[in-house]
Amino acid sequence: MAVGIGVLGAGTVGGTLIRRLTQEGAAVAAKSGLAFEIRRVAVRTPAKARSFTLPPGVVTDRPWDVVEDPAVELVVEVMGGRDPAFDLVRGALERGKPVVTANKELIAARGPELLEAAARTGVPLLFEAAVGGAIPIIRPLTETLAGERVERVTGIVNGTTNFILTRMADEGTDYGTALAEAQELGYAEADPTADVSGADAASKASILASLAFATWVDPDRVFREGITGISPIDLGFAAELGYAVRLLAIAQRTDGGVSARVHPAMIPLDHPLAAIRGATNAVLIQGPAIGELLFAGPGAGGEPTATAVLGDVIDAARELRSGSQVVPRISFRPGSVVDAAEVPTRWYLRLEVADKPGVLARIAGTFADAGVSIRSVWQEGRGDDATLLMVTHEALEKQQRAAAATLAHLDVVEEVAAAIRVEGETE
Amino acid sequence: MAVGIGVLGAGTVGGTLIRRLTQEGAAVAAKSGLAFEIRRVAVRTPAKARSFTLPPGVVTDRPWDVVEDPAVELVVEVMGGRDPAFDLVRGALERGKPVVTANKELIAARGPELLEAAARTGVPLLFEAAVGGAIPIIRPLTETLAGERVERVTGIVNGTTNFILTRMADEGTDYGTALAEAQELGYAEADPTADVSGADAASKASILASLAFATWVDPDRVFREGITGISPIDLGFAAELGYAVRLLAIAQRTDGGVSARVHPAMIPLDHPLAAIRGATNAVLIQGPAIGELLFAGPGAGGEPTATAVLGDVIDAARELRSGSQVVPRISFRPGSVVDAAEVPTRWYLRLEVADKPGVLARIAGTFADAGVSIRSVWQEGRGDDATLLMVTHEALEKQQRAAAATLAHLDVVEEVAAAIRVEGETE
Repeated sequence: MAVGIGVLGAGTVGGTLIRRLTQEGAAVAAKSGLAFEIRRVAVRTPAKARSFTLPPGVVTDRPWDVVEDPAVELVVEVMGGRDPAFDLVRGALERGKPVVTANKELIAARGPELLEAAARTGVPLLFEAAVGGAIPIIRPLTETLAGERVERVTGIVNGTTNFILTRMADEGTDYGTALAEAQELGYAEADPTADVSGADAASKASILASLAFATWVDPDRVFREGITGISPIDLGFAAELGYAVRLLAIAQRTDGGVSARVHPAMIPLDHPLAAIRGATNAVLIQGPAIGELLFAGPGAGGEPTATAVLGDVIDAARELRSGSQVVPRISFRPGSVVDAAEVPTRWYLRLEVADKPGVLARIAGTFADAGVSIRSVWQEGRGDDATLLMVTHEALEKQQRAAAATLAHLDVVEEVAAAIRVEGETE
Repeated sequence: MAVGIGVLGAGTVGGTLIRRLTQEGAAVAAKSGLAFEIRRVAVRTPAKARSFTLPPGVVTDRPWDVVEDPAVELVVEVMGGRDPAFDLVRGALERGKPVVTANKELIAARGPELLEAAARTGVPLLFEAAVGGAIPIIRPLTETLAGERVERVTGIVNGTTNFILTRMADEGTDYGTALAEAQELGYAEADPTADVSGADAASKASILASLAFATWVDPDRVFREGITGISPIDLGFAAELGYAVRLLAIAQRTDGGVSARVHPAMIPLDHPLAAIRGATNAVLIQGPAIGELLFAGPGAGGEPTATAVLGDVIDAARELRSGSQVVPRISFRPGSVVDAAEVPTRWYLRLEVADKPGVLARIAGTFADAGVSIRSVWQEGRGDDATLLMVTHEALEKQQRAAAATLAHLDVVEEVAAAIRVEGETE
């Protein structure tokens, strides 16, 4: 007998999922041994034209109708956002209905409560699609690596910003032009704030950190810096110095606890993540026994994300049909979360300076006073228009900022024009 | 209460697993919430020195003691080989004991029977470590991609041969020298036959094809060609023409059915698998919705492989403690398996020729007669010592061989010195 599916939201991902379950149901059934029937779909505007057709009465604008319908055995939440998604997902779980969601914001913000609700009724809450689209990352972290003491997870988890950054580097265009192009190609939304501010990546960093270290890292504790301040000048210098610039989500275990952060970073050109271009996503997992594991693939888009949702739907349906209580794979223990501001990193700095005798000595002295050690310096241009590029040894952001503030008052320094973290090198 | 573990085999992987469960048990327990106790370990030579210490009476040379011991709740099989592993694993499953194995040869040869035995008693049979060491690939294929119509899986699944091939290409050394170096560094065994013949990769290709297409592909149906015939001359020409040479395991869906093959292949230098160097493994999965997914990491070695085994042990123990019947994730349906000989590929050919007028016309004519279309030709050297490099359009191996046999009889052709498949380009 077909498994009754209810879908909350029918945007890009939901629409693709519905189309695949209705039009390609036979192929899904042949491979999985399971038949599915879309019983209820909640949308905001039922009258809107859709890429799928469903029998009359299936589509509703009341999401609770989906959750409460006795014919709906399994709920797929692809509406996005925290509310009303939280109440709906919890409501489904409390009714003993498995839930599959692609909603990273919801899982990052309320994951522990929802996982507890799922454990209480013994049903699965699956969210493979919440991070990295079709790239399997949730199961690898929670199952295959359940016995590994993961040290660090570094991801390119936002395709929009990666597209913009690679475009800027390749074409020498500025941020605005690359963003407009991303919007034209459908890689960026009309309001790109969630992507370019790093908020989307921060939700994913919260989830990755929480699963990797089995300690919940609230998204509010994730340090976040977006890409809007990145200039093509620094992308050009980065390439000259042997670096690529990527917006990274980093979850890391330090002596004081776990930390998570999202910011643009320079990484060496031979770093595995430097090869990740355009809208592709990738996640690098490091640990003592595994060394490095790399996962790469399409991180967004209707088809890839719907594939991950569908995989979860099939898995949840298998459990549902078995009638047995699901064994929770994810649990958390108390642990310290460290602010990323307390995690030292290397820094690339670009200083517009006057090329006078003694300038480097005065600049180096200022850094030394702030406790920042300089690893290398390059000078570009001469005279009043000279540019000084520096890469520091590891330093805290506040140390780097203190040095920069003092530098800005030196008569030989016109401007500290850029400060970008450097990652992926060994100190 | 601790989960009672029995281990069959205490070589590199088994020894590492035992050491981690005994010496790092607290860390495993903290992350997984489960405690483990090694109750029985079967080894061939109990007197041998080991990297772990166990209480007296735990180590035995009778593997059935492990399987039959009532204190053993979960069996880890890391002895390798088909026999007696098959009887032991089946025996454990029949007794309702979950089994975790890293034994690709066993799973490739007898997987369906063992999965059936596991389904009958409702216990897990997990084998994430059988392909790609610590790289999660079994769960992604069977769970995340359960709803994807996978078209092709291409893997570098044998670290020994990848090490040898990259070494030969980098250093210009011949096969024998690179093999000796691999043996010295511990990447190759004293008897390297299983690796260099492609047999190890063929077991993995059988498993990858079977899981990707949900149709069992017996290892006897996997076409196999090893790397012993690869010459540094062709690695040099490959680099000049923009290719890297890799031993690939390819599982592919064709119109006639599914096929699996293992052979050296030239792939473009910008192909994702060309970046996989040394003993690293990688698997590329292609499908209509996912586009391309890449997984890369350490494919062998005690620590990475033990990590994958440990992940399965934790997962199986969770199921065991829940007391519920496990839902099988893997099932097969009847399907056609096509011999790889019937799958056309491009070919790189190296011909030692006499550079006389009309030579190319006669060679091209011979290829045309055999139904092989030439895509490009390069000539290296002049006069009697000329070398002709050709890349053909797609052709069957028998067509290529027919052309080569005829060519060998032409007075202008001294020798058809090499024939290597070309993969990863679009026709």
